[in-house]
Amino acid sequence: MDRGILVVVSGFSGAGKGTLMKRLLEKYDNYALSISVTTRSPREGEQDGREYFFRTRKEFEELISQDQFIEYAQYVGNHYGTPKPYVEEQLRSGKDVILEIEIQGALKVKERFPDTLLLFVSPPSAQELKKRLEIRGTETEKSIKDRLSRAKEEARYISDYDHLLVNDDLETCVDVMHMVIQSEHHRLGRNREYVQKIRQELEAL
Amino acid sequence: MDRGILVVVSGFSGAGKGTLMKRLLEKYDNYALSISVTTRSPREGEQDGREYFFRTRKEFEELISQDQFIEYAQYVGNHYGTPKPYVEEQLRSGKDVILEIEIQGALKVKERFPDTLLLFVSPPSAQELKKRLEIRGTETEKSIKDRLSRAKEEARYISDYDHLLVNDDLETCVDVMHMVIQSEHHRLGRNREYVQKIRQELEAL
Repeated sequence: MDRGILVVVSGFSGAGKGTLMKRLLEKYDNYALSISVTTRSPREGEQDGREYFFRTRKEFEELISQDQFIEYAQYVGNHYGTPKPYVEEQLRSGKDVILEIEIQGALKVKERFPDTLLLFVSPPSAQELKKRLEIRGTETEKSIKDRLSRAKEEARYISDYDHLLVNDDLETCVDVMHMVIQSEHHRLGRNREYVQKIRQELEAL
Repeated sequence: MDRGILVVVSGFSGAGKGTLMKRLLEKYDNYALSISVTTRSPREGEQDGREYFFRTRKEFEELISQDQFIEYAQYVGNHYGTPKPYVEEQLRSGKDVILEIEIQGALKVKERFPDTLLLFVSPPSAQELKKRLEIRGTETEKSIKDRLSRAKEEARYISDYDHLLVNDDLETCVDVMHMVIQSEHHRLGRNREYVQKIRQELEAL
């Protein structure tokens, strides 16, 4: 069984990352979403090891000191982290593991784990992004403005990603995401064992 | 219309490159095979501009001096070259252009045109390669030995390629080749215009 690929998905707020990843997992086998460790309390119906791994602050800090995270961050007073052992186990079993992380975190992951595949999800146009945020109906005018100004900031880093997925039509974009990840399995750098093997076999003929 | 991708396919003799490329063009649109310029005489039924562009030695040398080749080489006393204007025209019209070139030539093309996608086609095993060469029935024992010893030499350069296609089942391999080439269209480096556009749009909002 080939080792899985660590895939990090980022994109502007409103680009449709969530729906995209949900659909990818419904439509295709061989993917696992990473489950985060968090210090926040479980909400109604949430289960440890399904939505999140729920840990105390002290436990979380111990995990940090044991280098058990691929990356971690703080958000509204709570800690969130991507647990290395869980991801490693999925990769070893051959699953491609998808993490959704914002841009700064994504670039840090790539730096530490250069084999990571970085995908950037983007809307067809900035106008479309604005429209989607407005249509949601859940955002205040201020919040839309904040998200767009954050997008402007984030756009500076798009070029650091490996692939660009323009999310125009959902099903098309899901298929492209699947195609891009599966192609990545054929990269030479991910097939060193095969190269080694065929070289030895040719020598032995 | 997006610009096409220049794809160079190499692989051991007997790996099945020819059949693979033929099937790719039958099965999928959007591909063009490059047509080579040659100084050899047309054979029965061959047509200028279809199988080859037939040119005199003098014309060929002029083309060299005008830097009209992507690459060229000599083989059994005749010259063969990949014409830049023809390939450029296909790429501009949005076609992905496939060249079949041996390894040394392929690496030179990549050096000169770093956007080139290098695909290496390999059999599942060295034993299988040997079997395929024997089954052909057209090869002498000496010729099989030569090809295998050449394969041994070529295996040193596999790692310089971008992707590895193990040709076990033909249809699967054709589909993988198509997938790998189409994924390449989503590379960030090939989408600079989009990045430019979305940045400007976000600034203008």
